[in-house]
Amino acid sequence: MTGDAAGAAPADQDIAGFVAVAEAAADAAGEVIRRYFRSVLDADLKADDSPVTDADRGAEQAMRAVISATFPTHGILGEEFGVQNAAAPLRWVLDPIDGTRAFITGRPVFGSLVALLQGDRPLLGIIDQPVTGERWVGVAGQTTRFRGPFGGRVGSRACPTLAQAELSCTSPEMFGADLEAWRKLSGATGRTSFGGDCYAYGLLALGHIDVIAEADLKVWDWAAILPVVEGAGGRMTDWHGAPLRVDGDGRVIAVGDPALLAPTIELLGG
Amino acid sequence: MTGDAAGAAPADQDIAGFVAVAEAAADAAGEVIRRYFRSVLDADLKADDSPVTDADRGAEQAMRAVISATFPTHGILGEEFGVQNAAAPLRWVLDPIDGTRAFITGRPVFGSLVALLQGDRPLLGIIDQPVTGERWVGVAGQTTRFRGPFGGRVGSRACPTLAQAELSCTSPEMFGADLEAWRKLSGATGRTSFGGDCYAYGLLALGHIDVIAEADLKVWDWAAILPVVEGAGGRMTDWHGAPLRVDGDGRVIAVGDPALLAPTIELLGG
Repeated sequence: MTGDAAGAAPADQDIAGFVAVAEAAADAAGEVIRRYFRSVLDADLKADDSPVTDADRGAEQAMRAVISATFPTHGILGEEFGVQNAAAPLRWVLDPIDGTRAFITGRPVFGSLVALLQGDRPLLGIIDQPVTGERWVGVAGQTTRFRGPFGGRVGSRACPTLAQAELSCTSPEMFGADLEAWRKLSGATGRTSFGGDCYAYGLLALGHIDVIAEADLKVWDWAAILPVVEGAGGRMTDWHGAPLRVDGDGRVIAVGDPALLAPTIELLGG
Repeated sequence: MTGDAAGAAPADQDIAGFVAVAEAAADAAGEVIRRYFRSVLDADLKADDSPVTDADRGAEQAMRAVISATFPTHGILGEEFGVQNAAAPLRWVLDPIDGTRAFITGRPVFGSLVALLQGDRPLLGIIDQPVTGERWVGVAGQTTRFRGPFGGRVGSRACPTLAQAELSCTSPEMFGADLEAWRKLSGATGRTSFGGDCYAYGLLALGHIDVIAEADLKVWDWAAILPVVEGAGGRMTDWHGAPLRVDGDGRVIAVGDPALLAPTIELLGG
């Protein structure tokens, strides 16, 4: 291992090893998740007692086992099981099912997220759709890779003005007090579509969506997405245009064409 | 051919023939649509000059050719090319891409819709997802059939109260003046998810969604869906609980558990 303790960038061979483990972790999560997808839930099950919870917990445990076996000193932060080795300079950030509503309703547009952070900076991120077999792999400073059975090529598209832009967010219900700001942005863009969670960011990286603005994201929601978006030519920041931080306010912007960042920030009041 | 001119129900062997042609039409549409899915569009293309339009028109022409070759005297009503044999007692109703925003943004949750109407009553309907390979086939009076690679079994689920229900609609932007009514319904249900168009009704037929309320639907949006939903144990009506009509007001309710129909109508002010 080189560099991680001092905060310098890891060497290329280390990165390749991290990516291999991240892909193995995503594979392990997918095996668990596919067993639960499209199982019909009783309508009156409590959230804590449901197959969703089982899938979420089982998948996170599977990912943690893969990572710990190879990198026992690394930190791991997951939505379900909290933090392990909190002070480690390299920390894995896991979200086994990003897009719980999509998963519960049987829509194959949720994703498993795996990221490796050095401080606040994601070194790599994977967006994996375990049902369709689509996977985006982003590494800081590298071109994003994508594979999947439905086609699609990596590269965000040129879209110089918001009036031409395809805007997306998971649900207008996520904004709370920020709903007015969202509405201003939505009013200025060409079209708006809903749904998608991490999958929508993957589609931005393929050139099908131009702007995503969301609120209330946790670090495990955005850490894996950032290198995928930036490695496809896009940008991802908070609502003020500043780099995303682990202790940030949860507001996130992603744009495919960097020219859209300034007008998006302005409309959101950042 | 038996019965269609008089308005009596067609014989079983006629229905089997109609279903075979409907499936062939959906196959033909899918071949066209898959060629265009995930092709990156220039952000500044006009809607009338885009690959979406090409896919829509090409797919509808392919479906019309299949149907006309076998049933030249039947009526055909499609979103793109209008009506043919308007006075025929049996009319095919086609929507090659239901879920244009999903198609444009690369989400595999749009669908091709094929229905056969006798008067206002759908005799059969197909919801086809040509990218994932999922297909729902509904026939009046029969149990809905479903096939696809991601699992799922036909049958809406028991959900006796709205408080337990999973609610869905394509976008809150579809309601216009009906937005307040939608909000009352959304406030009374357990959870709300957005996106999906016809695909969400397919998921209701698999027991993953309990209530869908939408507005501004055309006959080609709902005709294929109704037999799929009702053949899975659900109900589909207008916002007053009345049967859907070709010249109706575009407001649609689908419920998986028939017990949800009355409280849904009440909250929507029907």
